[in-house]
Amino acid sequence: MNTRRSFLQKLSAAAITFPLISFEDCTNADQAGSKTYDGPVLRVAIMGLGGYGTRVADAMVDCKKAKLVGVISGTPSKVKAWQAKYNIPDKNCYNYENFDAISKNPDIDAVYIITPNSLHHPQALRVAKAGKHVICEKPMALNAKEGQEMVDACKKANVKLLVGYRMHFEPKTLEVVRMRMDGELGKILFFQGLSGFRIGDPTQWRLNKQLAGGGSMMDIGIYSINGARYMVGEEPVWVTAQESKTDPVKFKEGVDETIQFQLGFPSGAVASCLSTYSMNGLDKFYLNGVNGFAEMQPSTGYGPIKGRTHKGELTQPHATHQTVQMEEFAAIILEGRKPVIPVDGEEGLRDLRIIDAIYEACKTGKKIELR
Amino acid sequence: MNTRRSFLQKLSAAAITFPLISFEDCTNADQAGSKTYDGPVLRVAIMGLGGYGTRVADAMVDCKKAKLVGVISGTPSKVKAWQAKYNIPDKNCYNYENFDAISKNPDIDAVYIITPNSLHHPQALRVAKAGKHVICEKPMALNAKEGQEMVDACKKANVKLLVGYRMHFEPKTLEVVRMRMDGELGKILFFQGLSGFRIGDPTQWRLNKQLAGGGSMMDIGIYSINGARYMVGEEPVWVTAQESKTDPVKFKEGVDETIQFQLGFPSGAVASCLSTYSMNGLDKFYLNGVNGFAEMQPSTGYGPIKGRTHKGELTQPHATHQTVQMEEFAAIILEGRKPVIPVDGEEGLRDLRIIDAIYEACKTGKKIELR
Repeated sequence: MNTRRSFLQKLSAAAITFPLISFEDCTNADQAGSKTYDGPVLRVAIMGLGGYGTRVADAMVDCKKAKLVGVISGTPSKVKAWQAKYNIPDKNCYNYENFDAISKNPDIDAVYIITPNSLHHPQALRVAKAGKHVICEKPMALNAKEGQEMVDACKKANVKLLVGYRMHFEPKTLEVVRMRMDGELGKILFFQGLSGFRIGDPTQWRLNKQLAGGGSMMDIGIYSINGARYMVGEEPVWVTAQESKTDPVKFKEGVDETIQFQLGFPSGAVASCLSTYSMNGLDKFYLNGVNGFAEMQPSTGYGPIKGRTHKGELTQPHATHQTVQMEEFAAIILEGRKPVIPVDGEEGLRDLRIIDAIYEACKTGKKIELR
Repeated sequence: MNTRRSFLQKLSAAAITFPLISFEDCTNADQAGSKTYDGPVLRVAIMGLGGYGTRVADAMVDCKKAKLVGVISGTPSKVKAWQAKYNIPDKNCYNYENFDAISKNPDIDAVYIITPNSLHHPQALRVAKAGKHVICEKPMALNAKEGQEMVDACKKANVKLLVGYRMHFEPKTLEVVRMRMDGELGKILFFQGLSGFRIGDPTQWRLNKQLAGGGSMMDIGIYSINGARYMVGEEPVWVTAQESKTDPVKFKEGVDETIQFQLGFPSGAVASCLSTYSMNGLDKFYLNGVNGFAEMQPSTGYGPIKGRTHKGELTQPHATHQTVQMEEFAAIILEGRKPVIPVDGEEGLRDLRIIDAIYEACKTGKKIELR
């Protein structure tokens, strides 16, 4: 029987849980504030006070299990502003030179790295060495080799490594995953992911190969890679990919503008995906199974996700992704909670292996076999 | 100014016309019957009285410029039934042995070939030799070589060769093409076509390599190929493709179950397409331009097409595709009308060249350059 109960039984057997609590607790500050919570709290420092760092900080105001307590930044004026806004004490403020000293700070449990991609690897190694849990924005690193080193370093330091896969807790996404796991879609045949937007300011770090490690694939294409994996529920065994560029001035050597890529899975299911920095609002997932389908658009944006399946509209309520993510990350670190879709370093590594293969496929024109 | 007028001016300059009349005249029999028409009529014999042949015959009842007057079939009982249903005289009935004698029949102008794919080529050559206009269901032939021979034969015989591209007259499709031609979508960046259905009876000719010449690509994938071309408005310069098979019993050697293929266009636009015989109801087009988009679902089915653009829902009325097609084909043959999207042998040939390249790309794993 494909019932919610059978699904929950499976989950229970696997010791994984849906973040049901969070959706109730984290929808707004008033609600969170009105409840008493005296359990353990994950005390987080954010490294990198840019646009996304600010988004995470604002979202964390509504968390009860996670709390922003520190900052790491190279810009003193930003540190000051954040201290004022989030009530952060001087002793929890660091810069990129001195943050190794965080090892001696008993009031910080974890560091959320939200810096340009190429910095994730060296910074994560330093945070791990400092004995703090590492939360890292995606892509976790520039390639699988770096990613593996991060996984190894965190293991050695006995700290957790979590990657900022906010969609792994998004209610409509999880409902589709539940349907797939419960067999409601039947055998999965096809996934399509279109991930892209038209990138603005040509001087931003995302268009700098040294800092970004690539182009659209590292930033937005990774959503289709990751989505293909959690939607299909398998790991791909082959990759093909084709790069195309219409603006070689804006998108320099090594910065991919548009890449189409295809994945083949052990079951015979295939995925067809697009990653682009030159098309507006491309944010669609489509999953096709023998007995049904799911389509989501937008599928990974910050705002409410919209979607439908063969059973009808998806109606699960929206909650701020970053709030739920941080609440769940705290539960994973503090309570050993296991999410339905992994968010650990190994998960980040799986995406990086595929990114490596995609870039190799673009370069060689060959089908790349994955182990 | 991107107005309807400017678009019509362009059309007028190009001596092409939208089938505006047909939509009014061909929606139902009563309407057609209530109008007097005393212009020239294209007298058509249908070759191949199967499911699609029947659909065309029924649709032609509502035409005024085209009339079903003859049949060519290997099954006498079918011939009898059609004679009764469509009032076809004995002298206009042929079988596959004797239909060359159609050359001596002054009451038939054209033959619509609606037989298994592999028969199109030899039959078209015979029809051309008999001096009758050739209308051929798609795919026009099994490969570009055969297609070229058909084009040459019809040219030599001084008869027209038209291919059954019914979507080329579909009002919502034409509105999107108009928007693209008028610049309303801006520079075109991406087309996505998903074409497929779950094929039933494993004994049907469509799953027989000898008769079908391939699998899903020859039957339904061609819609995405053709759609990519008329939606993007360019001819592709490269093709990559990946075949996958989950049921090698049903889909034997040379009969493709699922093929993903990608096209690159001179402007830098790319297309990502899927052709499959194993997924239900996959019938989606998506066109992305710098200034807008269009999406259609269903995009090529017989029923009403549905779609929307950045400007809103497409509301052009549905008319039976086959009725409009035959009315337009008659106008092309009898009045020299030029359709917005070509339907001649050269058009069919362009799709066949791409099909050849797709099969080659699947076999070699290589990117195939198209002249």
